[in-house]
Amino acid sequence: MATRKLPPPPATQPRGEAFVREVLEAALEQLAQVGFERLTIPLVAQQAGVNKTSIYRRWPSKIELVRDALGTATHHTQEAPNTGTLRGDLIALARTVAAFTQSPVGTAVVRIMLAESSNPQMRALAAMAYSEASGSGPWAVMQRAVMRGELKEGLDPSLVLFTIAGAIMHRVFVEQADANDELLAQVIDLVLYGAAAGR
Amino acid sequence: MATRKLPPPPATQPRGEAFVREVLEAALEQLAQVGFERLTIPLVAQQAGVNKTSIYRRWPSKIELVRDALGTATHHTQEAPNTGTLRGDLIALARTVAAFTQSPVGTAVVRIMLAESSNPQMRALAAMAYSEASGSGPWAVMQRAVMRGELKEGLDPSLVLFTIAGAIMHRVFVEQADANDELLAQVIDLVLYGAAAGR
Repeated sequence: MATRKLPPPPATQPRGEAFVREVLEAALEQLAQVGFERLTIPLVAQQAGVNKTSIYRRWPSKIELVRDALGTATHHTQEAPNTGTLRGDLIALARTVAAFTQSPVGTAVVRIMLAESSNPQMRALAAMAYSEASGSGPWAVMQRAVMRGELKEGLDPSLVLFTIAGAIMHRVFVEQADANDELLAQVIDLVLYGAAAGR
Repeated sequence: MATRKLPPPPATQPRGEAFVREVLEAALEQLAQVGFERLTIPLVAQQAGVNKTSIYRRWPSKIELVRDALGTATHHTQEAPNTGTLRGDLIALARTVAAFTQSPVGTAVVRIMLAESSNPQMRALAAMAYSEASGSGPWAVMQRAVMRGELKEGLDPSLVLFTIAGAIMHRVFVEQADANDELLAQVIDLVLYGAAAGR
């Protein structure tokens, strides 16, 4: 992993699965750092330590390369947590969201959704990656909470999920601070129990 | 205002304050649409319907132009709302945040903070614009709420403010939906009273 950042590129480049993995990881890092518009296949080749012609042979254009790179987001999908309480499940979900948001693929996806949304094809790819990375886990968690009677009646579960995701995004991208476990627990407790003093 | 979008550029270009206003507005729209890296002074000149040499005379480089354009964010600053209740004040604040987030200057600021944070000078400018647009209103609101005993003891007021801001950003940039009054009230009620069913 670390060696591919060392110049010059190795004389014998990785092949097969290792080649694909190194190139897609380099593409994600470039996406996260410079965005889709400024990403070039020669830059990705340099970072991955492979020949650009090998990349062009498998991915004729950068849109195909980026689609496959964003496709690796699916690998972050996890089983829906099932801790027995909504609070426990939400903390587990929030950890996944925080890890994704702070990963190269997450940064790339958020960057494209927020900043390059003028390119509809890229935005659609990023939205798909975001949705795949989220998976159905969050909805399973909310459904179980409703069945256990843990949520206020009539409350929209998506409001809960999106508010937590937004708070984590604000923390990571606007405040540029760490979304650590302590912060995540504070956000979950705020969303579950509210800021207002009890009567 | 509308006329500056009509081709061809007027033979007599706006002067004085009108010139500055048109150029800064065009710069903000370009920032919001294409970002700092791809913004060029000729593009701004074309959109504002002025000669690029007139722009270069006042702003020798695009960094100076962008700094002044982001400086207009201050004009969005409002008096701290004082409705008598924390809920009323937060809804008023959330309306300001939603309006800013959906304005050209807000889009530009968020875009730079989220996507172009690799350029430290731009990020510092954007963070300053964000902070100036927020002003001291939110802190005054939270301070009054603490004095009225409306907040849970020991609760960090910034957690409340950032969670609301994050929820609005998620709504506007990720869901690409309208942050209308109904949504804002739902977010505020969630953050104030929580999602958990009462015991």
